[in-house]
Amino acid sequence: MPPSRVSITIVYDLAPNCTMDDVEIGEHYHATVNGVVDYGVFVDLSDNLSGLVHESKLLDEYEYGDSLIVELDEILDNGDLSFSEAQPTEYRTDVVEPGQLITATDLDNNIGDPVHFVGEVIQIRQTSGPTIFQVRDEVGVVPCAGFEEAGVRAYPEYEIGDIVRVSGTVEQHDGGKQLEIDQLEPVPNAEEMRTQISESLDAVAEPNEIEPLVDWPELDTILSDLSDVAKTLRRAVLDGRPIRIRHHADGDGMCASIPLQLALERFIEERYETPEASEYLLRRLPSKAPFYEMEDVTRDLNHSLSDRDRHGQKLPLFLMLDNGSTEEDTPAYRTLAEYDIPIVVVDHHHPDPEAVEPLVTQHVNPYLHGEDYRVTTGMMSTELARMIDPDLTTDLKHVPAVAGLCDRSRADAMDAYLSLASDAGYDESDIEDIGEALDYAAFWLRYDDGNSFVNDVLDVGCDDSDRHAELVSFLADRAERDRNRQLDVTLSHTDHEQLDNGAHLYRIDVERHAHRFTYPAPGKTTGAVHDEMVTKHDGDPVITIGYGPDFAVLRSDGVRLDIPEMVSSLADEYPEAGVSGGGHLVVGSIKFVSGQRQTVFDALVEKMADADIDEQLRSTLL
Amino acid sequence: MPPSRVSITIVYDLAPNCTMDDVEIGEHYHATVNGVVDYGVFVDLSDNLSGLVHESKLLDEYEYGDSLIVELDEILDNGDLSFSEAQPTEYRTDVVEPGQLITATDLDNNIGDPVHFVGEVIQIRQTSGPTIFQVRDEVGVVPCAGFEEAGVRAYPEYEIGDIVRVSGTVEQHDGGKQLEIDQLEPVPNAEEMRTQISESLDAVAEPNEIEPLVDWPELDTILSDLSDVAKTLRRAVLDGRPIRIRHHADGDGMCASIPLQLALERFIEERYETPEASEYLLRRLPSKAPFYEMEDVTRDLNHSLSDRDRHGQKLPLFLMLDNGSTEEDTPAYRTLAEYDIPIVVVDHHHPDPEAVEPLVTQHVNPYLHGEDYRVTTGMMSTELARMIDPDLTTDLKHVPAVAGLCDRSRADAMDAYLSLASDAGYDESDIEDIGEALDYAAFWLRYDDGNSFVNDVLDVGCDDSDRHAELVSFLADRAERDRNRQLDVTLSHTDHEQLDNGAHLYRIDVERHAHRFTYPAPGKTTGAVHDEMVTKHDGDPVITIGYGPDFAVLRSDGVRLDIPEMVSSLADEYPEAGVSGGGHLVVGSIKFVSGQRQTVFDALVEKMADADIDEQLRSTLL
Amino acid sequence: MPPSRVSITIVYDLAPNCTMDDVEIGEHYHATVNGVVDYGVFVDLSDNLSGLVHESKLLDEYEYGDSLIVELDEILDNGDLSFSEAQPTEYRTDVVEPGQLITATDLDNNIGDPVHFVGEVIQIRQTSGPTIFQVRDEVGVVPCAGFEEAGVRAYPEYEIGDIVRVSGTVEQHDGGKQLEIDQLEPVPNAEEMRTQISESLDAVAEPNEIEPLVDWPELDTILSDLSDVAKTLRRAVLDGRPIRIRHHADGDGMCASIPLQLALERFIEERYETPEASEYLLRRLPSKAPFYEMEDVTRDLNHSLSDRDRHGQKLPLFLMLDNGSTEEDTPAYRTLAEYDIPIVVVDHHHPDPEAVEPLVTQHVNPYLHGEDYRVTTGMMSTELARMIDPDLTTDLKHVPAVAGLCDRSRADAMDAYLSLASDAGYDESDIEDIGEALDYAAFWLRYDDGNSFVNDVLDVGCDDSDRHAELVSFLADRAERDRNRQLDVTLSHTDHEQLDNGAHLYRIDVERHAHRFTYPAPGKTTGAVHDEMVTKHDGDPVITIGYGPDFAVLRSDGVRLDIPEMVSSLADEYPEAGVSGGGHLVVGSIKFVSGQRQTVFDALVEKMADADIDEQLRSTLL
Repeated sequence: MPPSRVSITIVYDLAPNCTMDDVEIGEHYHATVNGVVDYGVFVDLSDNLSGLVHESKLLDEYEYGDSLIVELDEILDNGDLSFSEAQPTEYRTDVVEPGQLITATDLDNNIGDPVHFVGEVIQIRQTSGPTIFQVRDEVGVVPCAGFEEAGVRAYPEYEIGDIVRVSGTVEQHDGGKQLEIDQLEPVPNAEEMRTQISESLDAVAEPNEIEPLVDWPELDTILSDLSDVAKTLRRAVLDGRPIRIRHHADGDGMCASIPLQLALERFIEERYETPEASEYLLRRLPSKAPFYEMEDVTRDLNHSLSDRDRHGQKLPLFLMLDNGSTEEDTPAYRTLAEYDIPIVVVDHHHPDPEAVEPLVTQHVNPYLHGEDYRVTTGMMSTELARMIDPDLTTDLKHVPAVAGLCDRSRADAMDAYLSLASDAGYDESDIEDIGEALDYAAFWLRYDDGNSFVNDVLDVGCDDSDRHAELVSFLADRAERDRNRQLDVTLSHTDHEQLDNGAHLYRIDVERHAHRFTYPAPGKTTGAVHDEMVTKHDGDPVITIGYGPDFAVLRSDGVRLDIPEMVSSLADEYPEAGVSGGGHLVVGSIKFVSGQRQTVFDALVEKMADADIDEQLRSTLL
Repeated sequence: MPPSRVSITIVYDLAPNCTMDDVEIGEHYHATVNGVVDYGVFVDLSDNLSGLVHESKLLDEYEYGDSLIVELDEILDNGDLSFSEAQPTEYRTDVVEPGQLITATDLDNNIGDPVHFVGEVIQIRQTSGPTIFQVRDEVGVVPCAGFEEAGVRAYPEYEIGDIVRVSGTVEQHDGGKQLEIDQLEPVPNAEEMRTQISESLDAVAEPNEIEPLVDWPELDTILSDLSDVAKTLRRAVLDGRPIRIRHHADGDGMCASIPLQLALERFIEERYETPEASEYLLRRLPSKAPFYEMEDVTRDLNHSLSDRDRHGQKLPLFLMLDNGSTEEDTPAYRTLAEYDIPIVVVDHHHPDPEAVEPLVTQHVNPYLHGEDYRVTTGMMSTELARMIDPDLTTDLKHVPAVAGLCDRSRADAMDAYLSLASDAGYDESDIEDIGEALDYAAFWLRYDDGNSFVNDVLDVGCDDSDRHAELVSFLADRAERDRNRQLDVTLSHTDHEQLDNGAHLYRIDVERHAHRFTYPAPGKTTGAVHDEMVTKHDGDPVITIGYGPDFAVLRSDGVRLDIPEMVSSLADEYPEAGVSGGGHLVVGSIKFVSGQRQTVFDALVEKMADADIDEQLRSTLL
Repeated sequence: MPPSRVSITIVYDLAPNCTMDDVEIGEHYHATVNGVVDYGVFVDLSDNLSGLVHESKLLDEYEYGDSLIVELDEILDNGDLSFSEAQPTEYRTDVVEPGQLITATDLDNNIGDPVHFVGEVIQIRQTSGPTIFQVRDEVGVVPCAGFEEAGVRAYPEYEIGDIVRVSGTVEQHDGGKQLEIDQLEPVPNAEEMRTQISESLDAVAEPNEIEPLVDWPELDTILSDLSDVAKTLRRAVLDGRPIRIRHHADGDGMCASIPLQLALERFIEERYETPEASEYLLRRLPSKAPFYEMEDVTRDLNHSLSDRDRHGQKLPLFLMLDNGSTEEDTPAYRTLAEYDIPIVVVDHHHPDPEAVEPLVTQHVNPYLHGEDYRVTTGMMSTELARMIDPDLTTDLKHVPAVAGLCDRSRADAMDAYLSLASDAGYDESDIEDIGEALDYAAFWLRYDDGNSFVNDVLDVGCDDSDRHAELVSFLADRAERDRNRQLDVTLSHTDHEQLDNGAHLYRIDVERHAHRFTYPAPGKTTGAVHDEMVTKHDGDPVITIGYGPDFAVLRSDGVRLDIPEMVSSLADEYPEAGVSGGGHLVVGSIKFVSGQRQTVFDALVEKMADADIDEQLRSTLL
């Protein structure tokens, strides 16, 4: 037996300015006779609404000016209304004001009211009940619930990108507000509307104008590129397009991505009512490899398609940070291109613009401005975050310095960045510790984003500065202890020879003479050995090779290796060795098939012996 | 302070044909006196309902025929009703029609009405609020919500499989429909009912009769087996039993599983109201290994038990595709057998029916019909998908050809399949590219199912044929480029010798002389080398061994290796080498402990030199 | 057009004892004039509530004693009320009783009623609608929903740990009960209240007093430590603090964690209304390594922080089982310490109390009581589970025996435990099989907890004893078969020599002469070889080394190896070999860098030849 329900007819009394949007078939209305004809009477419901009650639908006789109650039977295609008379024994009258045309911010003031809302559909999600259309106008996003049948797509004729006019009632839903759709109609002037919304959003998307944190001419030329990226990102948020940040999982990559994540979260929070909007609009994905691997992109694409199919989300925009400028990234980009997924790159690795740029929307890289890797991604990204949310400035003052030390940047601006950090309360050894700690945390987190935890380490969005300090001190200690433990093992197994050009060459088998699967990994282990040797030789040229069965990591101080050039000539000379790799003038890595290691090494060392000595070329911070 | 609530007594006026199902203790009813006795009056509520108002519960005196309002106090075990009189000052009358006995499809027409529904419980899920019983009759599944106390199991005396009579009201819930249970009772003729439902569902489960896509006698003998499988799968859907598809993660396995997944999704959509039903009823799980590994089955079982415990689902049915016919699968099967989990196998690998068949419900394999691996799983599965949903026929015409080329099938029907594909707009090179692309995608997806993405690649359920075409062209190009890159490295490290039987033997160390952890993997790399050598020797017998420290992949053209036989005799002769493996006459792989590689190789090559030459035996498409 | 809504004014008639908690601004009340002044009239709403209707807000003139209807306009800071008169044309009267001060268990009897509730906030979760405050008093936890704006934190001035007074209405929500907050206030006597709640909960947290399962003096001294742990765990549940069980993923670790998980689940179920409370309050996490790895703790911390940030949960308590007593665990502990996360350890591995104890809340280990590893963690944990839920006693009688056999415990109490198991229906071979099966299952589950499945194997919380029996028989058979298969390969590659002290030394390369990546793993493989050799030499001293490129597993019977001592002196003598490891007198493992294996082995064997013979020292069950 159902719970008791009382049924009283409601008769609506329409205000004079009510329109078609305010009536619905099957409902009852107070009407006034405005004309009597042979076949019935014409009645007015409001100044704008009148129609016929056919003789056969009349229960009494009426004259001009009489009042009666009618039920709306039909709305003809030409807009004519037809009614039948009703004489309910028991009824109540409800006065109806015409639905207001509201904007997204008026929702709060219209709970329970009939309203109209015009905007662009940016998401369509089918629930087990209604279909939810996310519709945005110039000022915000309104969830609109359409119901056809449980779990059945309502208004299937509309799709993402359509400009629509929603008539409905503002309701509380799970405590949130949404529009329950009574009517969903196309808008006559859709294109005009779309342009208008787009222009308004363009204005909103406009990044904040900022002064760079330090006075550094090299960065200036890059700032306008960054400003374009800031606008793209802000616009993606406004468009309801998810953003996926793919960043290198090392210190600089963290420094680049964490501030940006925070800035975007805050911007999303400002523009969306739903608190969990950040959770689906923003995700940070660390990459272990220094490029966008096919495995990663296949998985990313798979998740994106699944979010689209299951949650009606747009396909995301991919933002590559400290990663993404090289030819090795292009297969991944081509895969995304099949789905017209936009890609934005902010990187400071040696770029291959010819390969990359046809595939990406924006490409920011210091090399494109005559600068080099010394402008780290973290430095650029800090400014980018400030363009998105300038209120973060105070919290980010130490970040470029951390990024710089992490990547051993010998940029002219390092002093200025360090002094900026110092003003913010972090002296150079703090900054170094933060970098170490971040790198150590990234190592153990592997594919986890480590949100909150890494925020605490970097002290960006961390709410407890004691915890930050203790965490950094602990992690940096551990990192140092593990590095020393590694050096204890490796140093005594380092082979030394002096090359014809005078350089000291050190070789160390980092699989056989180092702890494996632990911190520091082979690349960093090689770096630690190299740093020791450079110190030992006090400025003389030093090269270190850390190798395993099928790879080698190279570091040089004082010798111009030009690793990309070496890789390319080795690949040509020994096609059967499968040589690949990359890097800078003095830092890089090479891969080959393990059976050809000796061949590759012999050739490599020969090239090294021929390389130019250049005291200025340094991979170490002296 | 609570929101304002008005309380008016509702007095029910029962229609003459109302029964016990329509009353509830504590509610008020209009009654008519049908008898006066010393100790009170007997009243009628309907033709079927009458009872006593005891003198002590009467507020006035009444005579035969008088009307009064009563409250139902008690329903005695013998069905007698006892009432007390009530004289509410303010009340409304609600007319009650008797609850209708409805079927699952009548839900829509009875919203807000009291109804009765009889069926079998197929899922019981405890929510934080009510307990949800999924009850099915012959035509559909109805969610019924029982409420005892928040999060407390209602009607704990009922379990999955019980036949029940639900009395309740049809309500909108989150927009969907469900029955709010007032009463849940056993059904007297339960077994009869169960049989009836089961028979009806058997009829519904009956697969569609189809004409095979091509006229191919070899397949005909298998079709009736497939029809049985189709029925099992359709029945599982009707029974609310989840289906888990475990398939080989290569081209043929994809061709086998993707169409079937689509067909089952469409069948589920047709039979279930809940749009997310597919999400829990169907899951596709790629297997990297060519058999069902203990690690996989342990995880699958764990998830199945957790779905049972947390979501009240039945344990699933496992469908093995392009996988599952061999002795190596039986440990996994035995583990599932402990939980009576049904297993269905559709495979074309050389089967071990004696080991497998005692453990599985159905086993379809061309070898069981005197055919062989040339009838690929994708070919069989395409027909199976059509038996489940014949409307898919047009979308699947190219699939068997893709499956065939992927597995290098030299079946007689390949020409017919290729011409069928050609009629559907895919010429042979398209088909080859799709196969390559699928295989390439499968490699990078690893354990991800890659839904949507692989649909786009295979062009099954893909809504954008341009995207399909571009995606395939891109992925096939990448696959070819990576294969060529691998050949550049491997070919120059291939050792050659000519065996006593005249065959050319090539050996290549695919760990030391090939790129690792990238596409193509060792097996495919060996295949690529072999193809090159076969072409070079232009029809002469060629064997290729691609090996690593503890495995070897074997390929032969023109030599009858009979790999299963070789493996078994090596295992006997060298027990300390731990030899295992399997395959066909000309394709297979061997595992051994790395310390015995030389021993195994010497013995293997000796056997190869003794093997028969048979020009007809080919592993390559010439 | 909105659905028809009827609007009638509700006028509240307050009972004489109503207070400020029962009125709300904007609502209408029946009032009585109790004083007339120049500028208006004073009215009474109840004995405790009166205020002014200013002359300008009066619609009529009134005298002392007159009745009128007023609307509450304002509550001044000093508690004065001000009203305006209202004369609604149509209204109903609702009598209001004052809100009752209820406890958590009174919720059921007050649905729809205004109530007050005082307690401590233990969780604050922001939903897309209201903010949910979980508030607990001495007897239970009540969800309280506060609404500010959709998705906006209500009452942001309150945080976890605050003592609050909630005034609101008890509502059904999704079938569950919650308090809809009208008012959230600080409590004047908060500290008193907190102490009172804490003391009550302390009493509830008090563990059950139990008699140990067997009479075993060695355990007695440990029981009081365990009782403290039981209290900590029960209190964590009452405090809404999640518990994460990190346990060694082997037989003893399973025997330790499964009963405890069940006991805690039952305790949570008893104290929480929400059925899914266990899902977020309790998680069991198997560790492959014999210590808490940095990778694991980083991930655990990351998840904990995310649960805190996204679901407003407290940071968890970590319970280490069969794991956690050694120095190797301390880096992980230090990481947790940064977040003040409490850690409790119950372990029987050789402990390093000086390193561990400063970092953990409780540390139970038999070595701290003059006992040793023979008191297994499973034995201790079974008693611990009984202290939490003594009703489990019958179900756990066989568990200590399983734990004992798994770890080859030669404890004096083994006989008593075996006879206890025998009384419960498990003879010694059953127990051995369960242990084998558990170990085999743990191997394949890897990082999955395998809930349900492992319960069935161990027969703790398993509802089908046939399934248990068949599962164990199947898994134990497989384990034995796989072990034999491994021995077939390994035994013939075992190198033998006799040391100067007479011990037989066997060496086996478990990477080159054993199946890899399958059961049994290297450690267990070495154990199996060793057992064979001990049997062969019939009591003579035997040492077995199973090694790979960078590790060795050691087992001894009859020779006092003292592995921790050996590791430490090897590390000192050969710093470049990176030696680490640990273990007991006769069981242990060593890691080193692969390039130094020969050096390490030579030194190791020399030490072994010098080691003392002691026939009592056994790693095998004879």
